[in-house]
Amino acid sequence: MSAACIFCKIIKGDIPSFKIFESDKTFAFLDIGPLSKGHSLIIPKHHGAKLHDIPDDQLAEVLSVTKRIAVAQGLENYNILQNNGRIAHQVVDHVHFHLIPKPNETEGLGVGWPTKDADKGELAKLLEEIKSKM
Amino acid sequence: MSAACIFCKIIKGDIPSFKIFESDKTFAFLDIGPLSKGHSLIIPKHHGAKLHDIPDDQLAEVLSVTKRIAVAQGLENYNILQNNGRIAHQVVDHVHFHLIPKPNETEGLGVGWPTKDADKGELAKLLEEIKSKM
Ligand SMILES: [Zn+2]
Ligand SMILES: [Zn+2]
Repeated sequence: MSAACIFCKIIKGDIPSFKIFESDKTFAFLDIGPLSKGHSLIIPKHHGAKLHDIPDDQLAEVLSVTKRIAVAQGLENYNILQNNGRIAHQVVDHVHFHLIPKPNETEGLGVGWPTKDADKGELAKLLEEIKSKM
Repeated sequence: MSAACIFCKIIKGDIPSFKIFESDKTFAFLDIGPLSKGHSLIIPKHHGAKLHDIPDDQLAEVLSVTKRIAVAQGLENYNILQNNGRIAHQVVDHVHFHLIPKPNETEGLGVGWPTKDADKGELAKLLEEIKSKM
């Protein structure tokens, strides 16, 4: 828990929320600034700013809860997004997964996809670097 | 397994890939059309088009593997994205999580965030609908 964190305050109940789900490890609530109807946030209760700050066991349930909320809404088209860092569009420094329904072209997440040409030799080199640190 | 699925073929080894990690449930490889250096795909081996098609136990490890690949690259700024449906930017119909490093403004994922005004009364009503189906 972080005393200054707005999501920790929501988990504690010090700030009200539209709570969808709660277990010992996970908390889920409606986003009050939604990109589309049903936009939800699924968060580990464990405080940490970025994905790599959260212990594995505190993450294990996140996707099943996310799935359950998608199914409860009968969603067919949606995005799951988790941002790390201001430059990557993170605003609140407590790990959160956005479940964002995509009902049509204008509502929901806007996705920009500036693909690069990848050199196969560079990819092979990068692969070895990553694998050596796994 | 789906005979026609390109990611099932990659898992089987019938199509080569820049494989980062493999366990009994999870497979991870470099995206060959990267948005930024280190763009990786983490997939459950279980074939299913969308998140809600994948059994919970096949999803439990996905985020810890994703985290491990982020840590191996020493990433601080990155996005995790999983798309469901053509309209939501899904191209391959086998669930995949993108790990997309965000090194600067121009590379990596472009995020469009068309926030809507949310009526608190409508949110409260929606919340009850969702909870009744959880
Ligand atoms: Zn917090
Ligand atoms: Zn497949």
